[in-house]
Amino acid sequence: MSFRTIEWRDDKVIMIDQTRLPGEEVYCEYADYKSVAEAIRGMVIRGAPAIGVAAAMGVALGAREIIADTYESFSRQMENVCDVMARTRPTAVNLFWAIERMKRVADENRDKPLDQLREILKTEAIRIEQEDLELCKAIGRHGAALIPEGATVLTHCNAGGLATAGYGTALGVIRAAHEAGKKIQVFADETRPWLQGARLTAWELMKDGIPVTLISDNMAGFFMKRGEIACCVVGADRIAANGDTANKIGTYSVAVLAKENNIPFYVAAPTTTLDLSLENGDQIPIEERHSREVTHLHGFPVAPEGIRVRNPAFDVTPARYISAIITEQGVVSGDYVTGLRGLVAP
Amino acid sequence: MSFRTIEWRDDKVIMIDQTRLPGEEVYCEYADYKSVAEAIRGMVIRGAPAIGVAAAMGVALGAREIIADTYESFSRQMENVCDVMARTRPTAVNLFWAIERMKRVADENRDKPLDQLREILKTEAIRIEQEDLELCKAIGRHGAALIPEGATVLTHCNAGGLATAGYGTALGVIRAAHEAGKKIQVFADETRPWLQGARLTAWELMKDGIPVTLISDNMAGFFMKRGEIACCVVGADRIAANGDTANKIGTYSVAVLAKENNIPFYVAAPTTTLDLSLENGDQIPIEERHSREVTHLHGFPVAPEGIRVRNPAFDVTPARYISAIITEQGVVSGDYVTGLRGLVAP
Repeated sequence: MSFRTIEWRDDKVIMIDQTRLPGEEVYCEYADYKSVAEAIRGMVIRGAPAIGVAAAMGVALGAREIIADTYESFSRQMENVCDVMARTRPTAVNLFWAIERMKRVADENRDKPLDQLREILKTEAIRIEQEDLELCKAIGRHGAALIPEGATVLTHCNAGGLATAGYGTALGVIRAAHEAGKKIQVFADETRPWLQGARLTAWELMKDGIPVTLISDNMAGFFMKRGEIACCVVGADRIAANGDTANKIGTYSVAVLAKENNIPFYVAAPTTTLDLSLENGDQIPIEERHSREVTHLHGFPVAPEGIRVRNPAFDVTPARYISAIITEQGVVSGDYVTGLRGLVAP
Repeated sequence: MSFRTIEWRDDKVIMIDQTRLPGEEVYCEYADYKSVAEAIRGMVIRGAPAIGVAAAMGVALGAREIIADTYESFSRQMENVCDVMARTRPTAVNLFWAIERMKRVADENRDKPLDQLREILKTEAIRIEQEDLELCKAIGRHGAALIPEGATVLTHCNAGGLATAGYGTALGVIRAAHEAGKKIQVFADETRPWLQGARLTAWELMKDGIPVTLISDNMAGFFMKRGEIACCVVGADRIAANGDTANKIGTYSVAVLAKENNIPFYVAAPTTTLDLSLENGDQIPIEERHSREVTHLHGFPVAPEGIRVRNPAFDVTPARYISAIITEQGVVSGDYVTGLRGLVAP
C-alpha cells in the first residue's frame, strides 16, 4: 500500500485525514482518546474495520490518560473511556467488538501493575490493527477466485485500504484478483452524500494502478442492464446471523439491480463484522447523519436553503440478494445461518 | 406558477437560467437562434417539453435572422437553422418534434410574403408554448386520481414547471393532487450529477408550498423498502411504441426498486414525447455528457485528477416496470403498443 490508514507511533495515533482526500494527503496525530472519538464521529477515519482499529487505539490512549491507584478505579474510568468511544457511530459492529476485546484484555490482566496493563492494552490495539491487515489479505485470497478474468467489477462506497488497517475487504478481493494477474477493471459508484467512491476508492485504486472508472450511483443500473458489469463486491458494517448485511446507503439498490440483471453480488468482510446476536437485519441500528452532508459540498449549497432532508448513512441488504459472503475463513453462501455460525464456532 | 420557464417577449426569448438555480433566480435574453441552441446544449433550459418549446422559439428567431428574396432561399437557410437546433441534445424527442412542426408550418405557408411567414412562425412557437402548458394541466388532471390521499410520492430529476412551459408533467400530477386537497408530500431524488432534484424540484415545490424532502439517489430504495413511499412519478424524454421510456439517468433504478417493493411506478408525459417510429427503447439514442459534471461541483473537484468517468445522461426503463403512462389524453397501461398508438390515431 502506498499510504497508511492508521498506526500507533510514539504513543500517538496517526490517521490519514479522509475528509481531505483526494485533494490533500494529510496525516493527523491524536494524543488523547476524546480526539480519537471525535475523529471517528467526524469521519477522519471510517469503514467498519478501520473504525474498530481506531476504537481499540483510542481505548489504549484512554488507558494511558487514566490516573488511578487501584484496578477498580482504573476499571471505572475505563468504562467511561469505552462509553465515549462507543457513542461515536452506531452501525458498524466492529467498533463494539474492538471495545469489548479491549475490556476483556484489561479484565484478564487485572492483577498486573497498571503501567504494565497500559502497555498490554497498547500492544493489543496494535495487534488488532495487524490482525485486520491479515484478515483482509485472507479475504482477498478467498474472494479473488470469484472474480472472472477480464471482469468489470462494480463496487460501492469504499471498502478499501482506507476502510481497514490496509488492503481492504471488497477492494482486497479486487487487489488480490489484480495481483493474481487477472485483467480486471473497476466501476466505482461515487457514493453520495459523502462521496467515498469518488474521493477514496478512485484515489486508492489509481494509486495502485488498478483501472477504475467513476460513475454516479444512479448509473450502476444502466451499466448492469447493458451487460457491462460482471459482478459486484461491497464491504459490510454489520452482518446479522441470517446474512442480512448493513452497509453504506445505496448498497441495497445495487443488490436489487444486480439480482434483476442476474449479476453476482458479493459481500466481503472479516468475521469481526458478524453480529450473530441479531437474528436478522431489521435489528441493526441505522445512523442518520446531518442534513448538511446532502445540502452542501465543500461548504457550497447545492439545494435551497431550509429544505427538509433525510440522510440515513446505511441500509440493510436482505441475505436473499447476496450471492456469497467472503470472509477471511472462507466463502459462505446458501444457508447463511448455518454457514456464518460455523465460521465463529469455538 | 411563481416563475416563468421560457417566454417570447419583444422578439427575444427569455429563459430562467437553470444552471444558476436555486442560488440565483436570473432571467436571460436570447436574440438569435445560435445562442438559443447554446442555451439548450448548456442546460440553461432542460426537460424534454421545455427543450421543445425552446427549439421552436429558436427556429422562429432564426427565421427573423434569415435574409432571403425567395422562399427557396429562405427554406435552405431554415434547414441550416433547424440543423443547428437539432444537434443540441439527442435524447429528448420533443426537440425534433418541435423542429418538424415549425418546418411543416413554414412549408404550408410557402406562398405567403416572407415577413408574414416569419410572423406565422413566431405565432406557432408561442402556440407550442401555450399548448404545452395546457397539456401539462391535462396530464395533472388525469394523473391526480392515481395519487392516494396522504401519499408520499417519490420523483426523480425535475419533470416540473421548469422542464415544461409551466406546471410540469410528473410535478403536474403532484401539483394537481395537491390542488385537489390531497395531503401529499414529495421525496425528491437529488439526481446526480446535475442535481436537478436538489436544485430545481426542491426549489419549485418549496416555492409552491408543497412539502418536499430531499434525499440522495441511493436512498430511494431504503425508503421504498421501509414502506415510506406510496408511488413513484417521473417524466420522460422519449417513449418508444412499446412503452419503453428514456428519462434521466437513474430512472431505471427507481423503477426496478419500485417493482421489487410492489410500489406503482408512473411515467407522466405529453404525447409529444412519444416516438412511435421506434419499436422499443433500445433504439433511443443516449446522450453522454462531459466528465466534469461528475468530477466537479461548482468548479471544485470531488474526485482525483485524471479519473476516468462515464456520464450517460439518460437510461431506458423497459415498459414492464411501468405501471401506467399518464398523458394529456388519458392514462395508458397494460398493452402499451395498442394504447399508445390509440392516443395519436388520426
